[in-house]
Amino acid sequence: MIDTPIELLRQNFRQAPFIASLGLELASIGAGECTTRLDVRPDHLQQNGVVHAGVLATLADHTAGAAAFTTLAPGSYPLTVEFKLNLLRPATGPTLRCIARVLKAGARLVVVESEVLADATSPARLCAKATVTLAVLTAGEAG
Amino acid sequence: MIDTPIELLRQNFRQAPFIASLGLELASIGAGECTTRLDVRPDHLQQNGVVHAGVLATLADHTAGAAAFTTLAPGSYPLTVEFKLNLLRPATGPTLRCIARVLKAGARLVVVESEVLADATSPARLCAKATVTLAVLTAGEAG
Amino acid sequence: MIDTPIELLRQNFRQAPFIASLGLELASIGAGECTTRLDVRPDHLQQNGVVHAGVLATLADHTAGAAAFTTLAPGSYPLTVEFKLNLLRPATGPTLRCIARVLKAGARLVVVESEVLADATSPARLCAKATVTLAVLTAGEAG
Amino acid sequence: MIDTPIELLRQNFRQAPFIASLGLELASIGAGECTTRLDVRPDHLQQNGVVHAGVLATLADHTAGAAAFTTLAPGSYPLTVEFKLNLLRPATGPTLRCIARVLKAGARLVVVESEVLADATSPARLCAKATVTLAVLTAGEAG
Repeated sequence: MIDTPIELLRQNFRQAPFIASLGLELASIGAGECTTRLDVRPDHLQQNGVVHAGVLATLADHTAGAAAFTTLAPGSYPLTVEFKLNLLRPATGPTLRCIARVLKAGARLVVVESEVLADATSPARLCAKATVTLAVLTAGEAG
Repeated sequence: MIDTPIELLRQNFRQAPFIASLGLELASIGAGECTTRLDVRPDHLQQNGVVHAGVLATLADHTAGAAAFTTLAPGSYPLTVEFKLNLLRPATGPTLRCIARVLKAGARLVVVESEVLADATSPARLCAKATVTLAVLTAGEAG
Repeated sequence: MIDTPIELLRQNFRQAPFIASLGLELASIGAGECTTRLDVRPDHLQQNGVVHAGVLATLADHTAGAAAFTTLAPGSYPLTVEFKLNLLRPATGPTLRCIARVLKAGARLVVVESEVLADATSPARLCAKATVTLAVLTAGEAG
Repeated sequence: MIDTPIELLRQNFRQAPFIASLGLELASIGAGECTTRLDVRPDHLQQNGVVHAGVLATLADHTAGAAAFTTLAPGSYPLTVEFKLNLLRPATGPTLRCIARVLKAGARLVVVESEVLADATSPARLCAKATVTLAVLTAGEAG
């Protein structure tokens, strides 16, 4: 009956139209951590055949939001204030994985870092890394 | 017969699958400047009804790339190295506009700032602002 | 008897030991704006004779804080959460000027952009540009 | 007779006037890594008694440069293009330590992340984290 954090997050991923449309899936969560997965599709690419930076930014940001959510009191939710993304190596499929870890869980701000990895090679290739700052809001509060 | 910069950029917007899929359109270019336009669709939104930060990041990054392109010698093209995006106010439709201006056009790096504006109000609402660093590559060169 | 905002800010510049030690001076303030000035000294330089990025970061950050302060209610003060600085052109003396303008004055967060200019040339050379996010704190509150 | 990388870096720290003036010291280097140390002095502080963000930015940037230097061919040197710094927790003395690790060592760009730690507590407190992008220059080349 009671929604667990992972179930609430799964709902969020399905209910956020842009995330559902991209096909981003929640893989796992822990305290201050979240991993997501994206099966790369042709419409995720830029003209040169690698995944568009905007897709990588979406992965980094949304996964950071989920990691931040695990640190909040019930009824609170995170809203991204800003992020910075470095594109390190070409991002190609068949799948990308994003791992987000909370660096600071404050009462008003949460700071998270996200790594986007391409799993086709072993070890996985670190394609992008982001730092994301999120504000802590309570239900009914405007951003 | 000779492709003009704006025609090359229009081709780029159509040939980049993620950009074509989002519906981002080139509005105008000038020396070191580019403006794009997005008609907001339901699949651009996050769960709370505002445009997802990943969409805004895509606008800011791709428009910056087009502005950078206008400063390059023929045969060169820009590749994003990193960007930082601040989300300032809720981004809502019916249309968003992104204006990118080059701050520094170097031989190897171009730095651009992008503003995402919502036109429903007058004056337009500044929803997000980004700073984007791009590397200058020549055709056939790997990123 | 009553301290004006500019007088409070002048006190701040004198009472912040690192700022006083660098020699950063308040030039002017307005609503959501601040300009500072630095006379470049040999100990501000890096090994190649240009001003160190850390000095430019200090100018950008502290001037942004002063601009943010002008937007706050009495008893509140700004604390930097994060900033991003792009180094655009070599920064050299004899003087640098920093202009900060508020992009968003929220109840909890203020976003400011800062430009560092070298005045030896006309027009002034844009050496660095930063975006700074600051939290709004009230007296007695911990960051 | 032949200068080793650590000796070249020690020279750099002594020859960069701002770094020597702050008192930043090289602690150790490895392949793609560098650690520095700062004994906190009163003139490093801001008005509220914590180390100024500009000092933390200087530590993060200069230590990143040293880490990047360890990845370069002889005759090349790094120049900071941009960085982003998140201030996570109050930075206080008696000493700060900065650890920088290379995320990507490219032929033209190096990306490094730097952590600033306060050692007074155990475990050490993560006070700030930065991501730094540096260009690879060769001797005689202008930035």
